[in-house]
Amino acid sequence: MRMSQLFTKTRKSAPADEVSKNAQLLIRAGYIHKEMAGAYDYLPLGLRVIENVKQIVREEMNAIGGNEFIMTTLQRKELWEKTDRWDEKKVDVWFKTHLQNGNELGLGWSHEEPITDMMINHISSYKDLPAYAYQFQNKMRNELRAKSGIMRGREFIMKDLYSYSVSQEEHEKFYNACIEAYHKVFERLGIGDITFFTLADGGAFTKFSHEFQTICDAGEDVVYLDREKKIAVNEEVMQDDVLEEHGLKRENLEEVKTAEVGNIFSFGGTKSEQLGLFFTDEDGEKKPVILGSYGIGITRVIGVITEIMADENGLVWSEDVAPYPVHVVRIGDSDEVVEAADKLVADMIAAGNEPLYDDRNERVGTMLSDADLIGIPKRVVISEKSLKAGGAEVKMRTESDSNIVPLAELV
Amino acid sequence: MRMSQLFTKTRKSAPADEVSKNAQLLIRAGYIHKEMAGAYDYLPLGLRVIENVKQIVREEMNAIGGNEFIMTTLQRKELWEKTDRWDEKKVDVWFKTHLQNGNELGLGWSHEEPITDMMINHISSYKDLPAYAYQFQNKMRNELRAKSGIMRGREFIMKDLYSYSVSQEEHEKFYNACIEAYHKVFERLGIGDITFFTLADGGAFTKFSHEFQTICDAGEDVVYLDREKKIAVNEEVMQDDVLEEHGLKRENLEEVKTAEVGNIFSFGGTKSEQLGLFFTDEDGEKKPVILGSYGIGITRVIGVITEIMADENGLVWSEDVAPYPVHVVRIGDSDEVVEAADKLVADMIAAGNEPLYDDRNERVGTMLSDADLIGIPKRVVISEKSLKAGGAEVKMRTESDSNIVPLAELV
Repeated sequence: MRMSQLFTKTRKSAPADEVSKNAQLLIRAGYIHKEMAGAYDYLPLGLRVIENVKQIVREEMNAIGGNEFIMTTLQRKELWEKTDRWDEKKVDVWFKTHLQNGNELGLGWSHEEPITDMMINHISSYKDLPAYAYQFQNKMRNELRAKSGIMRGREFIMKDLYSYSVSQEEHEKFYNACIEAYHKVFERLGIGDITFFTLADGGAFTKFSHEFQTICDAGEDVVYLDREKKIAVNEEVMQDDVLEEHGLKRENLEEVKTAEVGNIFSFGGTKSEQLGLFFTDEDGEKKPVILGSYGIGITRVIGVITEIMADENGLVWSEDVAPYPVHVVRIGDSDEVVEAADKLVADMIAAGNEPLYDDRNERVGTMLSDADLIGIPKRVVISEKSLKAGGAEVKMRTESDSNIVPLAELV
Repeated sequence: MRMSQLFTKTRKSAPADEVSKNAQLLIRAGYIHKEMAGAYDYLPLGLRVIENVKQIVREEMNAIGGNEFIMTTLQRKELWEKTDRWDEKKVDVWFKTHLQNGNELGLGWSHEEPITDMMINHISSYKDLPAYAYQFQNKMRNELRAKSGIMRGREFIMKDLYSYSVSQEEHEKFYNACIEAYHKVFERLGIGDITFFTLADGGAFTKFSHEFQTICDAGEDVVYLDREKKIAVNEEVMQDDVLEEHGLKRENLEEVKTAEVGNIFSFGGTKSEQLGLFFTDEDGEKKPVILGSYGIGITRVIGVITEIMADENGLVWSEDVAPYPVHVVRIGDSDEVVEAADKLVADMIAAGNEPLYDDRNERVGTMLSDADLIGIPKRVVISEKSLKAGGAEVKMRTESDSNIVPLAELV
């Protein structure tokens, strides 16, 4: 992608009302635009980061048997009344709207109710189970405050997977497979070593739910972490009996600020009973289907990565997440330099590694500071000087030294 | 994809309240689920069709310089007040909601206002122009009636591109390039020969807008078509002076029912003036940026294709749109048959042509009628009989004859 053809520009400053570090940086680097607190547009570079993160999550969800689909944002009131979650005293993040005939609708903040209702069409026998469905969906949550940039959205992208099982045993097998898949996701996203499996409150349905919490100063959670055992306890279940049950000792726990990047939850058969999702087992007995739900906040995790990886010069992405793997910066507009840079970029595109290509011929300082701000892992500078030295000047975003690499080796 | 692992099932009948042919068929074949009139979930097969159509549109939009991005559904009231389109008497399809502090928000039925406001950050000089941005976005339209299945959604996917140009001349050059790109899109979608460039009312901003209308009995429009000149006139501008201006004669026009699959629209500089998007030209003069908008209804066009291509046995997809290019049906569960079918499917996946694989071992009649209903273009049946005859029995969805093809030739 030629930067001369990208409609976005880097900015000297973010809007004055933007208080979060992740949004400030992403706005300045031209990845996002703020529509309102908690609602951001994703510009071309930001959309590519989203697609990269989604693809990593997609591969791991497919590997454990997930089927990708997509549900609507508009939701029927009657489904949420059946489970007593329509009332704003029970769920305080509803956005609601209404049809022209006056009927009230909800905007999806989660999808357990509509998907469970939908599954009535596809599940009737034990032969139809297990079923694993997931989506990347635009969730709407009417948060009272939204000051954490893309880490707490009023509109944000979530991967939500729902599992339907014949028994608690089958459910737990998948639940554990999903824990492993989540570890792989966060590993691939480059935050595996600072993301911890965390005990949390299970609500009305089960003793515990589980979260994946990433150590992050900008996070809104506090957890108590046993670094050696690689397990954390959310403050809401920080009780002696819980610690004892999990072989944890208060003196080994460290209080850390974290951001919740994933959560997994067991509903047992309750929600299926409320909504009417039953199956007939091998003995002809009618039973409610066991439901689990498994979330990863796609845009939130991008916010967390932004916060953690950025340095004083701007964004820093890993190769797997970066919008482009390489940033080619052309310095000068002599025929020799333009031809060499154009050829290198064309060869890289032909090899399936499209770079971001700064062909703007701006001032050197502007182009190099923009490259730092945008944060692509590998910077390749082509100038008369570098060509004379035998190729291009290559520098990793996280290093200060550069070295000359022959152009043919860069393709 | 093994059908035994797909969570969806084909159905004997669609819900009684579903009156549209496209939704009935897509529900029965397990492509979509109806949440409410005009709002459908896309199940795994349906989502794959969407992604295929999006990819065709994406390639053609990129080819004319489009940058893909994505905006929010939540929209600020103040932007639409500036252009006098917030009032429900002016725009009768608004869904509105509000924040917990009482502030009203709109749910995006279109995005000219927010993108033009956003562009203020990225456009200030003629050097920043032209700019072409597009998205695949979930539009919300509070339609009074929604009885045409996925052809008229209250929530639906639209490709909307916005062009920003320095002058009417530059604008028209892109406008014409987009007309050519749209022709290519509809050609690739297999409806090129029944989709016509159509003169329509330009509203407050320009004399004409232009639509792409596809001949379709289930369509909600009527146009007057000159088949020889390959141009149509929407009934709203069917006047003698318009016909004369375009060299058309009433006696050569044929009245046809159509569905609007695309539209393109010029706004001139008015909207930029209302929202404050100006640029400085080469002579230092401040001017409003010229805006165009260009839509293709992604889910609508899938509905149109469904209506047009389907036959009495179910859906019929072209290879470019089909969720999978090939449907492998395994008849029998002898080791020989299972091994041959598994190997064929594995080889096809390795070659990058993943098929839909019916490994359910259902009754033959059920599997073959499901294959017809699902409508994948090429059906490959493997049975003891076919193996004895030298391979698999291959039949195209649109033909009645089958022939035996050696398995190696099918990879």
